[in-house]
Amino acid sequence: MNDKNKIKNVTMTTLGGVGEIGKNMWVLEIGEEMLIIDSGVKFPENDLLGIDLVIPDFDYVIENKDRINGIVLTHGHEDHIGGLPYLLKEINAPIYGTKLTLGLLEGKLKEHRLLNDCRLKIVHAGSEVQVGNFTVEFIKVNHSIADTCALAIHTPLGPIVYASDFKFDQTPIDGEVADFHKFAELGDSPEGVLALFSDSTNVERDGYTLSEKVVGETVDEIFRAAKERVIVATFASNIHRVQQVVDAAFKYNRKVAFTGRSMLNNVDIARRLGYLQVPEDMIVDIRDCSNLPDNEVTLLTTGSQGEPMAALTRMARGDHYHINIKEGDTVMISASAIPGNEKYVGETINKLFRRGANVIYEDVSGVHVSGHASKEELKLMLNLVKPKYFVPVHGEYRHLYKHANLAEKVGVPRDNIYIADVGDTINFAEDKVSKLDNVKSGDVLIDGLGIGDVGNIVLRDRKMLSEDGIIIVVVTIDKNGNILVGPDIITRGFVYIRESEELIEAATQRVEDALKECEENNVTEWSVLKNTIRNSLNNYIYQKIKRNPMILPVIMEV
Amino acid sequence: MNDKNKIKNVTMTTLGGVGEIGKNMWVLEIGEEMLIIDSGVKFPENDLLGIDLVIPDFDYVIENKDRINGIVLTHGHEDHIGGLPYLLKEINAPIYGTKLTLGLLEGKLKEHRLLNDCRLKIVHAGSEVQVGNFTVEFIKVNHSIADTCALAIHTPLGPIVYASDFKFDQTPIDGEVADFHKFAELGDSPEGVLALFSDSTNVERDGYTLSEKVVGETVDEIFRAAKERVIVATFASNIHRVQQVVDAAFKYNRKVAFTGRSMLNNVDIARRLGYLQVPEDMIVDIRDCSNLPDNEVTLLTTGSQGEPMAALTRMARGDHYHINIKEGDTVMISASAIPGNEKYVGETINKLFRRGANVIYEDVSGVHVSGHASKEELKLMLNLVKPKYFVPVHGEYRHLYKHANLAEKVGVPRDNIYIADVGDTINFAEDKVSKLDNVKSGDVLIDGLGIGDVGNIVLRDRKMLSEDGIIIVVVTIDKNGNILVGPDIITRGFVYIRESEELIEAATQRVEDALKECEENNVTEWSVLKNTIRNSLNNYIYQKIKRNPMILPVIMEV
Repeated sequence: MNDKNKIKNVTMTTLGGVGEIGKNMWVLEIGEEMLIIDSGVKFPENDLLGIDLVIPDFDYVIENKDRINGIVLTHGHEDHIGGLPYLLKEINAPIYGTKLTLGLLEGKLKEHRLLNDCRLKIVHAGSEVQVGNFTVEFIKVNHSIADTCALAIHTPLGPIVYASDFKFDQTPIDGEVADFHKFAELGDSPEGVLALFSDSTNVERDGYTLSEKVVGETVDEIFRAAKERVIVATFASNIHRVQQVVDAAFKYNRKVAFTGRSMLNNVDIARRLGYLQVPEDMIVDIRDCSNLPDNEVTLLTTGSQGEPMAALTRMARGDHYHINIKEGDTVMISASAIPGNEKYVGETINKLFRRGANVIYEDVSGVHVSGHASKEELKLMLNLVKPKYFVPVHGEYRHLYKHANLAEKVGVPRDNIYIADVGDTINFAEDKVSKLDNVKSGDVLIDGLGIGDVGNIVLRDRKMLSEDGIIIVVVTIDKNGNILVGPDIITRGFVYIRESEELIEAATQRVEDALKECEENNVTEWSVLKNTIRNSLNNYIYQKIKRNPMILPVIMEV
Repeated sequence: MNDKNKIKNVTMTTLGGVGEIGKNMWVLEIGEEMLIIDSGVKFPENDLLGIDLVIPDFDYVIENKDRINGIVLTHGHEDHIGGLPYLLKEINAPIYGTKLTLGLLEGKLKEHRLLNDCRLKIVHAGSEVQVGNFTVEFIKVNHSIADTCALAIHTPLGPIVYASDFKFDQTPIDGEVADFHKFAELGDSPEGVLALFSDSTNVERDGYTLSEKVVGETVDEIFRAAKERVIVATFASNIHRVQQVVDAAFKYNRKVAFTGRSMLNNVDIARRLGYLQVPEDMIVDIRDCSNLPDNEVTLLTTGSQGEPMAALTRMARGDHYHINIKEGDTVMISASAIPGNEKYVGETINKLFRRGANVIYEDVSGVHVSGHASKEELKLMLNLVKPKYFVPVHGEYRHLYKHANLAEKVGVPRDNIYIADVGDTINFAEDKVSKLDNVKSGDVLIDGLGIGDVGNIVLRDRKMLSEDGIIIVVVTIDKNGNILVGPDIITRGFVYIRESEELIEAATQRVEDALKECEENNVTEWSVLKNTIRNSLNNYIYQKIKRNPMILPVIMEV
C-alpha cells in the first residue's frame, strides 16, 4: 500500500462483530487518518472454560495509535463499549457518544481507574461533530437502550452510514422516533451514500419488530391483575422498560425497590442524566419492602438471564438476603434468553413456580420485544439510505448471509455487497468494493486480571481437566535414578478414591513396575521416565474405566 | 405400611421424569406385586462435567426385585428405554413392548452383552397382555417414533392410563390414528379410569401439534426445488420422518445414502422389522455418492443437534471422510434443537452456509413438527379418559404445574391432581390421592464404565479445575522436616507459564518463605505444612490475577 492510493480510497476494517454476536468494533481509514467506531466485548461461550470476557485483538489500532483521530460510540451496550477500558490502557483518543452512552462508560472507566485520563465528549442525537479530520453525524434510532444513534461519517466518496443496532419504533417510549428524515436526506443527496453497515440480528424475522409500547400494555395488565408483590426482572440497561414498569407501579399505587448491582448502577446513572423519571418518594430500600403491604411493592431486579449470582436467581434458589419468594408473588421476566442461556432461564422459572410464584415470561406472553429491526425495517433502511455498497453487520454468518440476500432483493447489486470476516479491511473505491488486506485480529481472552494469558493450550488443559480430572504421579529419585519414595498417586476430579481403591492400587503397581524396568536398564533421563509413567497409565486407565484423565508425572531428585 | 393396607391401595412411585426432562421411570404396586413402566436415561446438563449419561437410582427396585412381575415399555426413545441395560444387570424380569421398541432395545442389550439373559415379549398395539398379575393394554398413540403406545393397567380401583409421550395425529404417516375408541371406552366404562398420567412437554403450546404429513409437504417442495444434492439431518429414531424423505427421494429419482452410526443402526432395524420401506436398489453406499450426478443424491444423516462427532457436524467442519459440502447443496435440518443444544445447532448452520450450502431449518420453515401433544390434544385426552385422579408427567416443574391447571380447567378437582417429585410414592385410594412415602431416588451418573463413582466432590473438583486450573506444589523433606528439594510449582490450565514467569517465581518464593518459617518453628506435621502451602498461595494468587485455581500441595518424605 502506498500513501497515494490510500488517500483516494476509503477503508473499513472490522476487529469484531461479524460472524459472531458481540465485540463490535470497526476502524475507518481515509488516507492516514483513522477513526474507531465502537469497541465492545463478547461474552464467552461454554467452551471458553473460566474465561470472563472476550475482547477484540487491539494490536492493529495500537500499532497505529498516532493516526487515531477519535473514537465514536453508537450506544451504551457492553458489546459496543465494554472493550474500551482495555483499549484505553493502550491508546488515548477523545471519545464521542450521547449522554447516556458516556454516562455508562464513565462508570466503567472509574472502576478501571482510567476516568481522569479520558476525554469524553457528549454529542446530541441529531447533531454533527468534527472528530479530528472526520465529520460524523449522530442520527437518532430506536433500540433496547435509550440514546442510541446510527452514524453517518463523511468521506471523499460520500457518507458511510453505520447502523449497527437499531429498530424503527413508530411509538417509542421517549416519543422520539428515529430520524427517518436524515436517512432520507442522505439517500437523496446528489453524492449518494457510499455504504450502509446495517444490523443483521433479526434478519430471520418477518415483518416489523413490535413497539416497546406493546410491552407497556402487557405490563399494565399484569399490574392490574396482581394481588400481592410484583417482581420484574429485565436488562438493567433497558431504561425504557424500567420506565414502563415504574409508570405502572405509580399508576397502581406501588412503591418500587431496585436490586442487583447493575440495576442499581444503571438506574442511578439514568436518573441522574434525566433518562429515567422516578419520584423520590416512590423508591424504597429493598430492606424495607417487608414493612409495606405486599400489594404496594414492586421490585425491579437483575437476573433475567438466570445468571447464577444475580438477584432473581438467588430469590429463586431461596438464598437472597432480603426477599423470599412466596405464594401470591407475580414474577415477570421481561427479556428473552440470549442463546446459550435458555437452560438457566428455564431453571429459574421452574424454581420460582415451585416457590408458589405466578411467573410470566416470554414464551407465554408479550412481556418482551426485541431491540433489533426485523425484515421490513431492514428493507426500509436500505430503501431510505439507497447505499452504493452494503455490508451486513452484527450477526452470525447466517444472519449476514441472509441480510445480503435481502439487500439484493431490495436492489443492491450482488457485487456491491460485502460479507466480512473479522480482520478484513474492506476497500471502497468509486467502482467497486473489495478486500484490501487482513489485519491481525481475533479473540483476546480475559480471565480475572489476566488479559491474553490464557490461550488454546491452557483451555485445552482446562477442558481435559473438566471432563476426567487429573492423576498426579509423584516419585522421588536419587541422583542415580533409584527410586527413594513413591510412586504416589494423587487424583482430583477423577473418581471417588474410596470407591476406587483397587483401581488406584493397581495403577500404582503398574507405574512401579514400569519404573523398576527403567531402573534396571539404567534409564535416568527425566523425559523418558515421565513418558514411561504416562504410557504405563494411559491405556490401563482407559481400558479399566473408559476415561482419559490428564496424567501428570512429577519427579523430584534428591 | 402393613400388607393389608397395601392390598387395598394402589401406588405409583416415580424414579424419574417429573420435574426434569428424561429418565422416565415409574413403578406400579398393587399389594406385593410390582410392575416397572419404562426406564430411561437423561442426557447430562452442562454442569455435569465429563458425565456421559444419567440414569435413575435403581436401589428401590433392586431391593424389591423378587416382587417385580415385569417391565412394560411405551416406546423406543432413549429417555424411556436407555436405562434398561443398567437395570438389567441387577434384575431379571420379562420385558414387554411393541416390535420396534424391542427391536431398538435388542441392539442396546447386545452391546452390553445382556441379550441372552433377557426375555423380550412383543406386544401389538391394540392388544392386551398379562404381565404376572397385571393386565396391561397397549393403546396406539402417535409420537415422533413409530409404534408408540399408551398403557392402560388394570387395578382393583380401575385402570391407570399412562400416556407419557403422545400426540394425536389425524393424518399419520402409517395411516394408523391413535386409538381414540379405546380411550373413550375406558373413560365411559362404569368403573371409570382411576388415574391419567399424561405428557406435559408441550403444555405451553396452544392449539394442536401439526401432523407429520405437513413436514412431508415441505420436504416435497424442498426436493422439487433442489438442483444438486439434498442432505437431510434428523433424529435417527424418527422413522416416519426418514420414510418421508425416502419417499420424496424416490419421487424425484434420487438414490439415498445413510450416514452416522445411529442412523445406519435405526434404519437397519426399522427396515428389518418392516417399519421403513426403502427399495434395495435406491440405497447407495456413502462412498459411492460421488459417482452419481449430484441431482440424484440424497443423504440422510445424524447431527441434527450439532453433536460434535455426528456426521453433519463433521461435514460442516469439513472433516467428514466422504462428503464435502459445496455450493449448490441443499441441507435440511429436520429437527428442533433440544434445550441446551441451540448454540451447537447454530454453529453447524453457520458453517454450512459458509461452505455455500442452502440450509433450511426450523426457524425459517416447516421442516419439523413436535412429537408431543399441544394444549387442545391434552384437553381431548383428559375429556376422553375422564380420570378420577390426574398426574402430569414428562416435564419440568413449570410444565407439570401448567398441565395441572389445564386439567383443573377441564374439570378435574384440584384435590385430585398430584404434582409429583422424583421419589414420591403416590397412593391412589377410593376417596383421595396422597403421598404415601419417599423412596430412595435420584441421579446416578455414568462416566465411561463407572456407574455412580462420580459424585458431588469429584464434580466440584472438575468445575474448579475447569475454571482456573490447578497449581501443584511439590516439596521433598527429610524425616526432620527439613526441605531437601523444592518447593516446585507446576500448573495446568492456569496461565501460560512463559507469559507468567514472574508470577510463578514470586509464588514459589512465598511458599519457600512460609515453609522456612515452619522449619524454624519445628513444624513437621504434614497437614500443617500443606495448609501453610495453601494459605501462602491462595490470597496471593487471587490478589495478583483474580483467579482461584485448585492448590494441591504434595509432600514427599525421604
